[in-house]
Amino acid sequence: MKSAAVAGASGYAGGELLRLLLTHPGFEIGALTAASSAGTTLGAHQPHLPQLAGRVIQETTAEALAGHEVVFLALPHGHSAAVAAQLGPETVVVDCGADHRLADPAAWQEFYGGEHAGTWPYGLPELPGQRAALKDATRIAVPGCYPTSVTLALFPAFAAGLAGTDVTVVAASGTSGAGKSLKPNLLGSEVMGSVSAYGVGGVHRHTPEMEQNLSAVAGERVTVSFTPTLVPMSRGILATCTAPAAPGVTRRSLREAYEAALKDEPFLRLLPEGQWPATAMTYGANTAALQVTLDERVGKIVAVIAIDNLTKGTAGGAIQSVNLALGLPEELGLPMTGVAP
Amino acid sequence: MKSAAVAGASGYAGGELLRLLLTHPGFEIGALTAASSAGTTLGAHQPHLPQLAGRVIQETTAEALAGHEVVFLALPHGHSAAVAAQLGPETVVVDCGADHRLADPAAWQEFYGGEHAGTWPYGLPELPGQRAALKDATRIAVPGCYPTSVTLALFPAFAAGLAGTDVTVVAASGTSGAGKSLKPNLLGSEVMGSVSAYGVGGVHRHTPEMEQNLSAVAGERVTVSFTPTLVPMSRGILATCTAPAAPGVTRRSLREAYEAALKDEPFLRLLPEGQWPATAMTYGANTAALQVTLDERVGKIVAVIAIDNLTKGTAGGAIQSVNLALGLPEELGLPMTGVAP
Amino acid sequence: MKSAAVAGASGYAGGELLRLLLTHPGFEIGALTAASSAGTTLGAHQPHLPQLAGRVIQETTAEALAGHEVVFLALPHGHSAAVAAQLGPETVVVDCGADHRLADPAAWQEFYGGEHAGTWPYGLPELPGQRAALKDATRIAVPGCYPTSVTLALFPAFAAGLAGTDVTVVAASGTSGAGKSLKPNLLGSEVMGSVSAYGVGGVHRHTPEMEQNLSAVAGERVTVSFTPTLVPMSRGILATCTAPAAPGVTRRSLREAYEAALKDEPFLRLLPEGQWPATAMTYGANTAALQVTLDERVGKIVAVIAIDNLTKGTAGGAIQSVNLALGLPEELGLPMTGVAP
Amino acid sequence: MKSAAVAGASGYAGGELLRLLLTHPGFEIGALTAASSAGTTLGAHQPHLPQLAGRVIQETTAEALAGHEVVFLALPHGHSAAVAAQLGPETVVVDCGADHRLADPAAWQEFYGGEHAGTWPYGLPELPGQRAALKDATRIAVPGCYPTSVTLALFPAFAAGLAGTDVTVVAASGTSGAGKSLKPNLLGSEVMGSVSAYGVGGVHRHTPEMEQNLSAVAGERVTVSFTPTLVPMSRGILATCTAPAAPGVTRRSLREAYEAALKDEPFLRLLPEGQWPATAMTYGANTAALQVTLDERVGKIVAVIAIDNLTKGTAGGAIQSVNLALGLPEELGLPMTGVAP
Repeated sequence: MKSAAVAGASGYAGGELLRLLLTHPGFEIGALTAASSAGTTLGAHQPHLPQLAGRVIQETTAEALAGHEVVFLALPHGHSAAVAAQLGPETVVVDCGADHRLADPAAWQEFYGGEHAGTWPYGLPELPGQRAALKDATRIAVPGCYPTSVTLALFPAFAAGLAGTDVTVVAASGTSGAGKSLKPNLLGSEVMGSVSAYGVGGVHRHTPEMEQNLSAVAGERVTVSFTPTLVPMSRGILATCTAPAAPGVTRRSLREAYEAALKDEPFLRLLPEGQWPATAMTYGANTAALQVTLDERVGKIVAVIAIDNLTKGTAGGAIQSVNLALGLPEELGLPMTGVAP
Repeated sequence: MKSAAVAGASGYAGGELLRLLLTHPGFEIGALTAASSAGTTLGAHQPHLPQLAGRVIQETTAEALAGHEVVFLALPHGHSAAVAAQLGPETVVVDCGADHRLADPAAWQEFYGGEHAGTWPYGLPELPGQRAALKDATRIAVPGCYPTSVTLALFPAFAAGLAGTDVTVVAASGTSGAGKSLKPNLLGSEVMGSVSAYGVGGVHRHTPEMEQNLSAVAGERVTVSFTPTLVPMSRGILATCTAPAAPGVTRRSLREAYEAALKDEPFLRLLPEGQWPATAMTYGANTAALQVTLDERVGKIVAVIAIDNLTKGTAGGAIQSVNLALGLPEELGLPMTGVAP
Repeated sequence: MKSAAVAGASGYAGGELLRLLLTHPGFEIGALTAASSAGTTLGAHQPHLPQLAGRVIQETTAEALAGHEVVFLALPHGHSAAVAAQLGPETVVVDCGADHRLADPAAWQEFYGGEHAGTWPYGLPELPGQRAALKDATRIAVPGCYPTSVTLALFPAFAAGLAGTDVTVVAASGTSGAGKSLKPNLLGSEVMGSVSAYGVGGVHRHTPEMEQNLSAVAGERVTVSFTPTLVPMSRGILATCTAPAAPGVTRRSLREAYEAALKDEPFLRLLPEGQWPATAMTYGANTAALQVTLDERVGKIVAVIAIDNLTKGTAGGAIQSVNLALGLPEELGLPMTGVAP
Repeated sequence: MKSAAVAGASGYAGGELLRLLLTHPGFEIGALTAASSAGTTLGAHQPHLPQLAGRVIQETTAEALAGHEVVFLALPHGHSAAVAAQLGPETVVVDCGADHRLADPAAWQEFYGGEHAGTWPYGLPELPGQRAALKDATRIAVPGCYPTSVTLALFPAFAAGLAGTDVTVVAASGTSGAGKSLKPNLLGSEVMGSVSAYGVGGVHRHTPEMEQNLSAVAGERVTVSFTPTLVPMSRGILATCTAPAAPGVTRRSLREAYEAALKDEPFLRLLPEGQWPATAMTYGANTAALQVTLDERVGKIVAVIAIDNLTKGTAGGAIQSVNLALGLPEELGLPMTGVAP
């Protein structure tokens, strides 16, 4: 049993980490820390986790987090590097925030601003070659939820050389992706019964991360036009990814490429032909449901993927990578079934 | 006061027609007809319309519909032509279904199958030149809800020569767009908390209608990659429309083109820069909320539009066209405000 | 045309007042005021009201509100009396807050605390005798949304002497009833997919107002056990009201009492037997949908009512009372149809 | 490992049974059967269960179900007895339907009609004395979802003699409680944004079951006025239960009675004082979240409970009882955490 601390325990990512850690056979839950919630009990913030209801949240400090074998940081961006610097290499530090995802300091500067904190091993095991990079890692940068979805939807096409580099993505996200932020546009009254667009026109911070991942797979520069939308549900991302089909691609060759790329992936599920993803298929699960087709009329590959932004898109993906880093079975403790209807 | 009959009165489009006609100063509501609901009262199907609750629904026949100055047909596709053939040219017949939208019989054959019923004046007044075509019309083909949204979002760009012909659209629709169909995937338990894709890969029937409209504006063949998604709300469409920017387009020239195209449009509203559409802005209204930007990184125009699929997307758009056909003020009786939050 | 100012224009009640005033033939919209939103445009807060999008919100002061024939106050409780004191009797002042609803200072003290601001004519025209009280009124206390629903559901039974005084009410409300408050429990992520109870055990502030109304009708002290719940929708209240049946009551005598009490009420609609209220029937409308039955097994009257908390429950009810105060037709400018589905 | 068959595998209760059985260490999943879905794969109906996606559904027959150690019947009422009669006493048969819940044939006749199938051990372990009754049982009648919630909310009060026998319950249920029925009122377009009442006035079939349970605990006849409502969510029940307080009851004595009754219950959780249940606390979990208070003004006990209707209310409760019947640990394989937000 490894001890695991969670910083940001009162937020949505923190809550999901704890939900999964509670049933993971390899971890015992250590310190729970937060900022403004310090001093309150977890039950006030995460009442769906009765086992931890009475646990008191501590302030997020290196002292509180020290002494655990794994420390999960679910903090606003910009806060992880300072904390991590105080935790030695004997501790696996997992950054669920953005600070250590981007390799290109210029991209960091353009989209986030401020100093680049450096790059950590990227916690997306399904990315070709990435399992080796995560083995024995002591620092892990958990991917953004949107980049997780888009990368998983398109890497088989790029790995097989079937897609052109001019990608268009429109993704629908549940509101938990925005965190437990007290903003008027996130109030239930505003989001129920309404779909809205935001971060349009190439300004969403997850854009360079998608391009980084797909370019690495393609071996050439891939660009992404990315439009996120907010939909009336708590959890889930459905990403529709459209790319030009390379010359000669057929529906059959496309499907075969996806089948080959996904056949040994424990968490990625190519649906039977004719069935299209719905986020309910992956609610609370560490899985992704995918489907792909060729629109022959216009020469486009259309790949659609559903994930749970909090599970596979954040906390589940983080634990999957930690499993690899610690030498545990990759699937250990991670839910394979969705909760539906 | 013109008398108006509604065929398909127990369905969602029929109900929305009646909701709007009840407060329209130019119409009195005549026969209400339907198929399987014939013989029941309207209150059993449209309990939000108390003024008509006791009205008995008749069977949809030419006899029941005859004698009205306007007949609205909100029927499944394939049923309108036969009914319309029995109604003389003194009656304005408005087909809310698909039968008379497409000019190209081959497109009809490919996407709908069966015999092409012919083409009626297309009820989208905002399409350049279309107001003249609707004046004194006695047959009107109401556009599909998705084509309404996409055409309105992109016609200013194509009219100004700013967009390339390779369009990608991903649209989110509320469930009422699928009608009152008893299908498992439309049950509340299935749609709440879930977003799903359907009709992916160039097979949705609204695709050729979008292409027809945009090609007419562009003066050249425009193709559309169209992916519809179903989101957990009853009403509303949010369409994200991405097109290559023509050489030399700037954010400023793009905005100016939209401002010029929309400034005299009573129902189309270009939002202030920085504000993006949400379907709640148009809930129950005959308006569209638009925003457009240029993604300079990737050279794409991204236009986003929100409409209410039942109002501007069906029943409101139908009445707007009938107002024109009858020589009434175009805006007469049509709601300008949404119901929010 | 009377000029109307709205204080609290950026909130939900303020937005609904403006939505209704925009189509009311008797009013022109004057000053829009608010507290923290002063200086911004209304379009940033109420983007569903395009006609007013460019209007600048002023600070709520007596100067800004003076000179209008009607002033609607949609302010947090405790703020109305001071503003009203500066507006002369030539101005009709309508308090959508709680300050002037309760006649009993002790009840005010117990449930709200602080000094009692006094009692204004109570804006529920359907309460027996209340239309006369509202004629020529220059101060109007708009009822709470829950008391509106419960009073309308039960007054026919109490007026006819059919119900015992020991009432139990459980009501479900959409989140807009809590206002545009930035509280974690009102975030979309928290409310979607969840129903919760709050204010349980006789502590909700609307309780004494229900008792005041029902006691007045009954002519004796009526007590209410009231439990409110929050449900995943933006608008609407469904109140289930249970009371002991007086000896000798039958289903027939109960229905006849309701039919008699409601037959001339323009906004109250007793549904046909067997049909039960749903809030969608009244979405955006100033109507109430009611049904009542006798549970003979246990000797209870069960009355269920649906209203829109923002329309009949707040802004529509306010305008209905103002219509009476100004000598306008009671129904003028108020929507009779819901927006559904 | 015991083999378990599920009849009704394509429905909501069947799907939930399979979701739980998949992670239960004591069971392997055998035959999956259904009626109209026979011959299709499970993945078409339960796409959230990837491990079983390719399994073919058989027709529900005694042959298909024979040879398993446990058979779960998730069938419409009236179908269980005939199937069970063909399964010998070596098979544990678990009826998730209503057929074997009521002990009183007259109550069966009044609320369901037709012949009474007899009474099986009632699968609510928390009911005083019921664990002994379930030990070694080979036939189990799973309680209805509403009776589960109401019984668990009130048994501590009745067991301690604190509550009067005149109970009023209003409960809100998600739509999955109605099953995967193709009825217009269960369409997403109808249920989203709306709350409705149904089965009002003492006619809901779960009423006599509540009375049976509470009367057994109280040792005298308890009557229930029960009003169910349908709310816009897929899962969850929130029941508000109001009963007269016995003379002398105080908030303290009430809380102590609940603490005593619940302190050793693994799945029942009395929330800290001041925190009230929300269904999200129990989403997908086999737990119940309870709170109780005394409304001293009116002399009423108000107990509120949240459960997941499909988990604790059906499939989880069923497995909990089977665990007892088979001599397994009661909590084995049952989720303790909810999925939230």
